[in-house]
Amino acid sequence: MNIVDCYKNVRQRTEMICNPLQTEDYVVQPIVDVSPPKWHLGHTTWFFETFILTPYALNYQAYNSEYNYVFNSYYETVGNRVIRTDRGNLSRPTVQDIYLYRAYVDDAMVKFLSNELKEEVKKLVLLGFNHEEQHQELLYTDIKYILGHNPLFPPYDVNYTSPSFEIKNDDAFIRIKEGIYEIGFKGDGFCFDNELNRHKVYLNSFEISANLVNNAEYLAFIQDGGYRDFRHWHAEGWDWVKSNKIAAPLYWHLIDGKWHQYTFSGLEPLHLNNSVCHISYFEAYAYATWRGLRLPTEFEWEAAAPYFTWGENWEWTESAYLPYPGFTKASGAIGEYNGKFMVNQTVLRGASEVTSPGHSRITYRNFFQTNLRWQFTGIRLAK
Amino acid sequence: MNIVDCYKNVRQRTEMICNPLQTEDYVVQPIVDVSPPKWHLGHTTWFFETFILTPYALNYQAYNSEYNYVFNSYYETVGNRVIRTDRGNLSRPTVQDIYLYRAYVDDAMVKFLSNELKEEVKKLVLLGFNHEEQHQELLYTDIKYILGHNPLFPPYDVNYTSPSFEIKNDDAFIRIKEGIYEIGFKGDGFCFDNELNRHKVYLNSFEISANLVNNAEYLAFIQDGGYRDFRHWHAEGWDWVKSNKIAAPLYWHLIDGKWHQYTFSGLEPLHLNNSVCHISYFEAYAYATWRGLRLPTEFEWEAAAPYFTWGENWEWTESAYLPYPGFTKASGAIGEYNGKFMVNQTVLRGASEVTSPGHSRITYRNFFQTNLRWQFTGIRLAK
Amino acid sequence: MNIVDCYKNVRQRTEMICNPLQTEDYVVQPIVDVSPPKWHLGHTTWFFETFILTPYALNYQAYNSEYNYVFNSYYETVGNRVIRTDRGNLSRPTVQDIYLYRAYVDDAMVKFLSNELKEEVKKLVLLGFNHEEQHQELLYTDIKYILGHNPLFPPYDVNYTSPSFEIKNDDAFIRIKEGIYEIGFKGDGFCFDNELNRHKVYLNSFEISANLVNNAEYLAFIQDGGYRDFRHWHAEGWDWVKSNKIAAPLYWHLIDGKWHQYTFSGLEPLHLNNSVCHISYFEAYAYATWRGLRLPTEFEWEAAAPYFTWGENWEWTESAYLPYPGFTKASGAIGEYNGKFMVNQTVLRGASEVTSPGHSRITYRNFFQTNLRWQFTGIRLAK
Amino acid sequence: MNIVDCYKNVRQRTEMICNPLQTEDYVVQPIVDVSPPKWHLGHTTWFFETFILTPYALNYQAYNSEYNYVFNSYYETVGNRVIRTDRGNLSRPTVQDIYLYRAYVDDAMVKFLSNELKEEVKKLVLLGFNHEEQHQELLYTDIKYILGHNPLFPPYDVNYTSPSFEIKNDDAFIRIKEGIYEIGFKGDGFCFDNELNRHKVYLNSFEISANLVNNAEYLAFIQDGGYRDFRHWHAEGWDWVKSNKIAAPLYWHLIDGKWHQYTFSGLEPLHLNNSVCHISYFEAYAYATWRGLRLPTEFEWEAAAPYFTWGENWEWTESAYLPYPGFTKASGAIGEYNGKFMVNQTVLRGASEVTSPGHSRITYRNFFQTNLRWQFTGIRLAK
Repeated sequence: MNIVDCYKNVRQRTEMICNPLQTEDYVVQPIVDVSPPKWHLGHTTWFFETFILTPYALNYQAYNSEYNYVFNSYYETVGNRVIRTDRGNLSRPTVQDIYLYRAYVDDAMVKFLSNELKEEVKKLVLLGFNHEEQHQELLYTDIKYILGHNPLFPPYDVNYTSPSFEIKNDDAFIRIKEGIYEIGFKGDGFCFDNELNRHKVYLNSFEISANLVNNAEYLAFIQDGGYRDFRHWHAEGWDWVKSNKIAAPLYWHLIDGKWHQYTFSGLEPLHLNNSVCHISYFEAYAYATWRGLRLPTEFEWEAAAPYFTWGENWEWTESAYLPYPGFTKASGAIGEYNGKFMVNQTVLRGASEVTSPGHSRITYRNFFQTNLRWQFTGIRLAK
Repeated sequence: MNIVDCYKNVRQRTEMICNPLQTEDYVVQPIVDVSPPKWHLGHTTWFFETFILTPYALNYQAYNSEYNYVFNSYYETVGNRVIRTDRGNLSRPTVQDIYLYRAYVDDAMVKFLSNELKEEVKKLVLLGFNHEEQHQELLYTDIKYILGHNPLFPPYDVNYTSPSFEIKNDDAFIRIKEGIYEIGFKGDGFCFDNELNRHKVYLNSFEISANLVNNAEYLAFIQDGGYRDFRHWHAEGWDWVKSNKIAAPLYWHLIDGKWHQYTFSGLEPLHLNNSVCHISYFEAYAYATWRGLRLPTEFEWEAAAPYFTWGENWEWTESAYLPYPGFTKASGAIGEYNGKFMVNQTVLRGASEVTSPGHSRITYRNFFQTNLRWQFTGIRLAK
Repeated sequence: MNIVDCYKNVRQRTEMICNPLQTEDYVVQPIVDVSPPKWHLGHTTWFFETFILTPYALNYQAYNSEYNYVFNSYYETVGNRVIRTDRGNLSRPTVQDIYLYRAYVDDAMVKFLSNELKEEVKKLVLLGFNHEEQHQELLYTDIKYILGHNPLFPPYDVNYTSPSFEIKNDDAFIRIKEGIYEIGFKGDGFCFDNELNRHKVYLNSFEISANLVNNAEYLAFIQDGGYRDFRHWHAEGWDWVKSNKIAAPLYWHLIDGKWHQYTFSGLEPLHLNNSVCHISYFEAYAYATWRGLRLPTEFEWEAAAPYFTWGENWEWTESAYLPYPGFTKASGAIGEYNGKFMVNQTVLRGASEVTSPGHSRITYRNFFQTNLRWQFTGIRLAK
Repeated sequence: MNIVDCYKNVRQRTEMICNPLQTEDYVVQPIVDVSPPKWHLGHTTWFFETFILTPYALNYQAYNSEYNYVFNSYYETVGNRVIRTDRGNLSRPTVQDIYLYRAYVDDAMVKFLSNELKEEVKKLVLLGFNHEEQHQELLYTDIKYILGHNPLFPPYDVNYTSPSFEIKNDDAFIRIKEGIYEIGFKGDGFCFDNELNRHKVYLNSFEISANLVNNAEYLAFIQDGGYRDFRHWHAEGWDWVKSNKIAAPLYWHLIDGKWHQYTFSGLEPLHLNNSVCHISYFEAYAYATWRGLRLPTEFEWEAAAPYFTWGENWEWTESAYLPYPGFTKASGAIGEYNGKFMVNQTVLRGASEVTSPGHSRITYRNFFQTNLRWQFTGIRLAK
């Protein structure tokens, strides 16, 4: 597929994800971690405008000079911006305005991409595709939160079905032997800067579960009082449980004594065989401790990943998000992409049911704060 | 006008106010004091449904049982409700859903009002009209905040013009002589419970300004360093100024060294002759102190009101919002209308340019916390 | 008694109050409203030094120039100061340092007062006495909080006994007839500026209870579920009850099913006949509402006070703390004494068992925020 | 030295550290991270009483049953406790009470230790010694904060002199070659559970500075605008700088244009040759980034430590505090010692001038949140 078609594909997929929404659903921001869908639509467009069209496209006219203020996410280099908590307070630009903005930028991009491109520009375009794919996943997670926290529990799409994953043999553990392993991206394709510098790590022998923990198994933890016994938790996790009165994964509701979960197709009885989802790192750790097991490190995960099926939910690891040996930031605004977040966050590995096709790979490093649950997160155990 | 036409009039006016809005403008809640316009549309409808149709209309079927949870404002008697800060987090019901809800209830109300009504019900219907008129004013103030705090400063209606007020003779003070005055509602028409129990108060002689303070006069206070000199302020007001870095009325913007104000028709150079608007009680007090004057009490205001023009902006008084002698709350939910707010709020008298026609009277008591500015508030001086 | 003896008396009484304390008790500040006893000792001394010795005593040398920063309470005119929440973070100056500071200032004051004094200075000295007496009362209330919130419940003085009050005839109400009453200070003695400008008010006829509500009566409110029924409460009071999980007056403890109260002589079974104490305005209002009665206004209180016994606990009124007609602030720092607090506070009338002898009078106006309870506050009812 | 003498030594050193304090200095808690010295005195005593005397000493009578509530730090297993922010609100038990408590427990311990001890008990006693040594270091850091944040800047001891460290050759870097290294405690002596499980790690070749960054070098960072340029900082660090208006290390004061630092002997001109101290991880990282270098990982540090001098300040590493392979918690309360803190903290290696003699070793892992500065923390660079 040529670069123009790739561009169109990525851009259309974003709009396809928003297709089932009502105008109002594009606007709200129920918690700070969630962005309004219309903001994602604008921000991904701003990214192409700011980092490609404005510096490289001859005579490009910015669509609206005030949009830089509205759609900049966190790039300090590029100037001031709407503070994150205010994204849901903006009724303007309207959804229609933003679709017009997208059309304007798409037009310019398609023209621009039809020319010969310098290698440096090609790299940025590829980064733009991957950036938009990341926001596609965020769109799904944010939409789920917006609808799933509405007291009316509206479905996103009554016909939505989760992709099915391979059948599981529940207690299987895979044994990996002690030795030196190579970690980090290898090859010619795209990767993010945080995957770079393939390097050696020494791993002790370990075992890792072939399957993710499922809802039935997690329910047993709840029923055994797991959320009421401090011994399973980090001190900070235990404070989080008590301050926020946490007693189950996000989107679980106990209705008339029966557990339900909110899904993209609406509120449904808990699917016991599905892998547990929407749990924080604190919960993943507590569950593992309760089982007498632990979470794998991100290095163990990468070493073992060829031997199990992954991609159902992002999997919490025990590793803090830190730079690989020799990590360096690009200069300028693009250098703000990953490096400045390498503190007090925890790595997730794998992918999830809402990850864009082709966007996942074995060396991919996702990362979130330890209390966050609105992503499609799961648990794989190690020992 | 018969009661059915009155009902239609009130209801249509609410929708007329919302007419210039985009769908997105109906949804957001930039500060806790502001409610999304769609919430006002739903809540005023819920009021008629809950307090009139459900208890009194034969065989009335509630439109949607979950709407009680969504549109109850603060009536503890009527059950649980969306917490106030969450109103702007709800994308559903959509704007269209709510207009359908309005139509359904309007239909039932028109049928119901065509019958003979008991006196008790007539009173409630009248309360419903006045309640909706209060929300009409809130709609204007909330819409102004929603648009006026958007970085794009979209106009509400480019052709909006403020009603004009009578010509002023700026330094005129009206002298009222010492004695006993009667305060509180008299007559047959509608009034709120907080105006009831006409009673005597003893007033010392005082003088009260014939005109409101205008922007030019207020600008002199700013230019004299009024916001930087603690001596003009209450201790609590001074903390408020410093914590919130307040330096001018709400909606004032200093752009390239020139003062502008956001109005319903967009951002405009400051109108020096307009009465100053969107100031807190703290600011009104500080301004009066700086002038060596004071604010009138609500009793002084009521005694003097026949002798000056009012209705341009609500006017801060020096009076705390407290019950009149013999005040009693109605039983049931309607009793929650006013009484439970009679603490730590300050009385405003008069009306504003966005008060509904026929909704104001000399005994009307409005009230807000001392730090709030998004209402159309102004300053009249006394000595 | 001459002015030198008066001075010595006042100063000695302050130290006598602190006599039973351990050094550590002088230091802590468990809540922002409480000041460490050593701060009171220093601040009252600073008051005489700053407002009398420094401006009027020839060649007076300030004891330590840094003490102005440490012991200024809220006088913006006099310069920067330790923020209020930090008072309990200061281990220095030590208690002994502060007693030396007192001795130094006392010495200078006694010399200074032995000279002929200008009328203006005499007034300030009198204000200093009354200021110190106010801090004597605060010392008692703050000491009670410091010891009463320690998990070991140490007594202040095992032999402390409350002054006894006159015998009560419980249901007596005193009837006051409608008419014009004069309110405010009259006479030659000392009064605070907030009592000045004796003026007329018009009162409807009312009845006021001869006695304060006692613990047995208040317990009936608790046992009737008074803290769990929103109908008795202001909206803001109800939020306060829920956010702070309030279920009884301050210092009440339910131990093994029996109510106890912390007193100056330690933890004791609840004294049912004592007047209820340490309740907020919100609770006083809720209790009155539950009884189908109300609190008196401060004007009703002052008009009726000659006919009942008062002085056991400060009594919450229904009146907001506002200036009397014609109130003006003194110029300079002394003008900050009262006026700048005249917003969002509620008036208490009477006095309490820990008020200094001779410090109370019928026109005295005390005032606190509506949620505060650490003062010796009580309830008198009206109808 | 026999175990009884060791016990006496450790206990006496704690009291020796407190010797220069005034009673008031023992009481206050200016920030949540600081504990009042009297709390440390009581808590270390409670540790011996709770974990040794009560379970193992025949007929031991607890000194005061309420002290468990007062002096438990964070052991959930052992019951409720004073919340951490309340430690500075307790005037009782007094300092003298606590010294009596120490004497009582010391008496019982000396008797108990004179008997034959089981191996399990010996281990606990050794843990008690090391625990008390950790609190000795905390005593120094907390005392410095208590006195250094007092506006009077009282010295702890005017004759205090920092231990001197070896002469430095400033730009020296030590090169360590690529390969497998063994990390973790080896030997028979005492170590904490977080050092256990010596294991292999693979390190790339790296260079590490022979010396710590000194004040002159750090000053250059400040003078180059290091605190005002977001590019050097983590996103979370940049927020921290802006929210807290951070512009220099803790205890630095710019007075009349000259930099000063608070030291144990009082406020002094900045010592340019001393290693920079009292900086957060955020600052250490920003400084390294500004220099175009980085911080070492804790594994690099441990591999290189035999080749440089350390012990002047605790050194921030780039490593998150995580369990070593095979880490397991002891059962019961002692298991809460370290494991539950292994999230969102960063490792420091080395020791500081206030570390107790004999308490440091090459495998020791200290850890704090990334924003904390009151410890004696420094910077060693790597590349």
